[in-house]
Amino acid sequence: METISCNKLEDVKITIPKQVGKLENQKTTIVNVSGIEVGGKEVVIFAGPCAVENKEQLFETAKSVKASGAKILRGGAFKPRSSPYSFQGLGKEGLELLSQVNKALDIPIVTEVMDTRQVELVSEYADLIQVGSRNMQNFPLLKEVGKSKKPVLLKRGMMATIEEFLNAAEYILSQGNNQVILCERGIRTFETSTRNTLDLSAVPMLKHLTHLPVIVDPSHGTGLRWMVPIMAKAAVAAGADGLIMEVHYKPEIALCDGNQSLRLNEFSELMVDLGKIAKAVGRTIL
Amino acid sequence: METISCNKLEDVKITIPKQVGKLENQKTTIVNVSGIEVGGKEVVIFAGPCAVENKEQLFETAKSVKASGAKILRGGAFKPRSSPYSFQGLGKEGLELLSQVNKALDIPIVTEVMDTRQVELVSEYADLIQVGSRNMQNFPLLKEVGKSKKPVLLKRGMMATIEEFLNAAEYILSQGNNQVILCERGIRTFETSTRNTLDLSAVPMLKHLTHLPVIVDPSHGTGLRWMVPIMAKAAVAAGADGLIMEVHYKPEIALCDGNQSLRLNEFSELMVDLGKIAKAVGRTIL
Amino acid sequence: METISCNKLEDVKITIPKQVGKLENQKTTIVNVSGIEVGGKEVVIFAGPCAVENKEQLFETAKSVKASGAKILRGGAFKPRSSPYSFQGLGKEGLELLSQVNKALDIPIVTEVMDTRQVELVSEYADLIQVGSRNMQNFPLLKEVGKSKKPVLLKRGMMATIEEFLNAAEYILSQGNNQVILCERGIRTFETSTRNTLDLSAVPMLKHLTHLPVIVDPSHGTGLRWMVPIMAKAAVAAGADGLIMEVHYKPEIALCDGNQSLRLNEFSELMVDLGKIAKAVGRTIL
Amino acid sequence: METISCNKLEDVKITIPKQVGKLENQKTTIVNVSGIEVGGKEVVIFAGPCAVENKEQLFETAKSVKASGAKILRGGAFKPRSSPYSFQGLGKEGLELLSQVNKALDIPIVTEVMDTRQVELVSEYADLIQVGSRNMQNFPLLKEVGKSKKPVLLKRGMMATIEEFLNAAEYILSQGNNQVILCERGIRTFETSTRNTLDLSAVPMLKHLTHLPVIVDPSHGTGLRWMVPIMAKAAVAAGADGLIMEVHYKPEIALCDGNQSLRLNEFSELMVDLGKIAKAVGRTIL
Repeated sequence: METISCNKLEDVKITIPKQVGKLENQKTTIVNVSGIEVGGKEVVIFAGPCAVENKEQLFETAKSVKASGAKILRGGAFKPRSSPYSFQGLGKEGLELLSQVNKALDIPIVTEVMDTRQVELVSEYADLIQVGSRNMQNFPLLKEVGKSKKPVLLKRGMMATIEEFLNAAEYILSQGNNQVILCERGIRTFETSTRNTLDLSAVPMLKHLTHLPVIVDPSHGTGLRWMVPIMAKAAVAAGADGLIMEVHYKPEIALCDGNQSLRLNEFSELMVDLGKIAKAVGRTIL
Repeated sequence: METISCNKLEDVKITIPKQVGKLENQKTTIVNVSGIEVGGKEVVIFAGPCAVENKEQLFETAKSVKASGAKILRGGAFKPRSSPYSFQGLGKEGLELLSQVNKALDIPIVTEVMDTRQVELVSEYADLIQVGSRNMQNFPLLKEVGKSKKPVLLKRGMMATIEEFLNAAEYILSQGNNQVILCERGIRTFETSTRNTLDLSAVPMLKHLTHLPVIVDPSHGTGLRWMVPIMAKAAVAAGADGLIMEVHYKPEIALCDGNQSLRLNEFSELMVDLGKIAKAVGRTIL
Repeated sequence: METISCNKLEDVKITIPKQVGKLENQKTTIVNVSGIEVGGKEVVIFAGPCAVENKEQLFETAKSVKASGAKILRGGAFKPRSSPYSFQGLGKEGLELLSQVNKALDIPIVTEVMDTRQVELVSEYADLIQVGSRNMQNFPLLKEVGKSKKPVLLKRGMMATIEEFLNAAEYILSQGNNQVILCERGIRTFETSTRNTLDLSAVPMLKHLTHLPVIVDPSHGTGLRWMVPIMAKAAVAAGADGLIMEVHYKPEIALCDGNQSLRLNEFSELMVDLGKIAKAVGRTIL
Repeated sequence: METISCNKLEDVKITIPKQVGKLENQKTTIVNVSGIEVGGKEVVIFAGPCAVENKEQLFETAKSVKASGAKILRGGAFKPRSSPYSFQGLGKEGLELLSQVNKALDIPIVTEVMDTRQVELVSEYADLIQVGSRNMQNFPLLKEVGKSKKPVLLKRGMMATIEEFLNAAEYILSQGNNQVILCERGIRTFETSTRNTLDLSAVPMLKHLTHLPVIVDPSHGTGLRWMVPIMAKAAVAAGADGLIMEVHYKPEIALCDGNQSLRLNEFSELMVDLGKIAKAVGRTIL
């Protein structure tokens, strides 16, 4: 395989795939999500509930996070759950609710696709298609979203090396779709005090190795509501092009991930703090 | 979720799913693969090439491993490869070749399915459908094979906990298919002298927690040809109900995993040694 | 064991030792290193070479890092090296050089002790005694530095859980010495593109669980010179009370860790950037 | 560094130290522990309590394990415990009890040393000096036991790679002591259903790379009494030159590691089963 790399990587033994490899003097690819640019000077904030649960939950949360400065709304309709007996998401009904809030509030939507047979359906509703951690090496799914014309949010597998992550992105690019956003969301290690170990060094490493934008998910990366704002700030300081965070209007009754979802006021306050960090590293938010 | 467990697991904090939980006095489930029973007194040997490459390679390898005592032939038609530029398998042509060898040699076939859209096709050819490590938490795929009437070989994800592995099996059982064989194939750790770290303690742990048969893959578990026979013996001593191993008639020219594939004579010699270990733990081979 | 904890740690299953547990309303313990306060509003910068090599190297590096704003000079005289054939440090001669630079430049010294028999000697020269990662569970050494009256810098073991780290600190405190600074320096994971995985979430977690100051070592945490400044900024954003970094006047000829040592000008430039981040999180540097 | 290796290690990127490297046609080094040869045809069983607690406990356990076929008695006098408030061992009183049982029953003793200042004392009592996992990279301790004339049992650190393990052994050999037994005792991984993950592939790998004998500790490797016999059998099948196991006459009241200690009758029964496996791999026990 031919590889292209402009950086001298003496200490990094990585085979950079052809298309995701960084060309000399090439700027970061900017991914356009229905008008919102990811990969430019602005640090873009993605926020919303883990899962779409009902109209009130989705609209109340969406209105608030948009008012606080979030630019893209997250919300799962198809949920990958460890147990078959856990809430599996509202499915198509969830997509319909996302479509309603998209029209009502004029905010782009990111939602997950889990099955090659659903790519066409999800593409009709989503502005940005998410491939989740558990599917990072679901190669038929990667090829299928690579064939779609929608931008893709690819989350790092919890067990994936940087090299495997780049090769997974390459599956999408190899089908002609270079609108890919990479997302670090915590890796699995021996440490159990946090849900995962947020590997913030992946941010500079990925930006060093490829031209794709890189965002961070401190919600899954820590699993602890009180820690999310702290690691969100650290992620921006580390150079992240965006953050995706779980926010819920009533985390106590959330059907999934309530423990790691920010309350509406917590998210609002965090946005102010993030602005200060962004400024300190020459970026903007809001 | 209701859980059923007969063993007192003071030191193991695991939520055992309902169906895979072991009932008091219940023997291991015996999975019938076109006449070959997995989970009984016999330690069943699965062998064959990593990927189906061509007729000569498949037939020469199959004839030899069958003569040496292998009961089920492995061979990939759809290959999950880290890079999109690596050999992806022969696809339907590979399935056809597997079908030919199955008829010619009267040996059951296990082959991998990667896409929900392929489950029906693969089911027509395979005696046992494999869900690979990278798809262990591909929940739509698990549900789809759960709906099929074929037995399923479920490989442990390379960074999946025992609990996640059992929940993945539960996805299959929850659809009405309890013909599931679990396979330990090495986990990802900090150690790099072997390709993965073969977690043989998973064998007694899984057999302690569920009624499903458990086999071991020392080929992927070590990644080193010379080490495969040693760890194969250790796996039988640890109580494995079977072994799945990569064997190639000419490993030097194999299109994938040549470094970890046994030569035909090495496999033949190993079978003799395995017989001694099986006898020492009250089991049989051949 | 009696434990004291003021925070409600629903999601964190950790047994907090008695003395390191945080008392309600108690502020962070401030550790006084010969006049330099660690744990207050100021983010304290520790810098210097991996190992003391000779007078020129030590003085040139020390003068420069002090001028750039470093408050404490690091430099190893006894070096824990994986191989017995690698440079093992200058020993007592190194301590003498550290003493000279301490007097000449009026900058406190931190240096490592590896052997219970050396604690008395090292205490005569050092302002702050370092216990390295490989000795985090060297319990006799922890007790011995606990009996000394010098403050201690305790580095997290590369595979130590947060709970083990706190218990190691407790060994020191249990001997009557509560002047302990904790240091996150990267943990060992499956990822190999960086030397270790810098676990920045350990910073808020440790500050949540104890009253001790917490600093970060981005040099060992990444192993890559170009990545050190980025992760240094992220560490300050995550709330670190200080940073310890390897700086060398000529990294190309360094006897150890040259690849991860900052050049003098790189360190100087980094200090300016760190000041901006510190301000953004309500702290100061310089 | 000059390295000696006779095996072609195409897939293993390890720098083998000079002295532990395997010489062409060289047989395994046989370590003589007061008349008991480790590294020959016999699989040598080490058994006894985690810690020496009192005379009755030690003698009752020792008499029974010797009668069942154990050749070397284990028992800790100095215990490395995660918490300073846990039982730390009887110290010199424990060594005295070990000496009494050694004389009364004529069975060699292995016990741990944790501090360079104790090496001389422990050497007076022990037939084999143990360096524990937490001290595998305590380099001054390794050098000190390297200077003693006693054989050394070196346990792999729970976070140590094979290469680091060999380099730690090299610290001992470099001081002129080549009577070193290596011990695999489980590594730390993400899996939590067992106390550690017993890495049995380390046995063939170490025997491939060095001439030193290799034993396995299934007690610490699993942490579960019921699993110890199963993994003990697997270790012998994997080629271990010996096993070290915790056995206690009354595990329910053990001061440490009761959950993983075999009862006297369980150990006795296991010895019979181990004999069958040993025979199957061309070795002997008893």
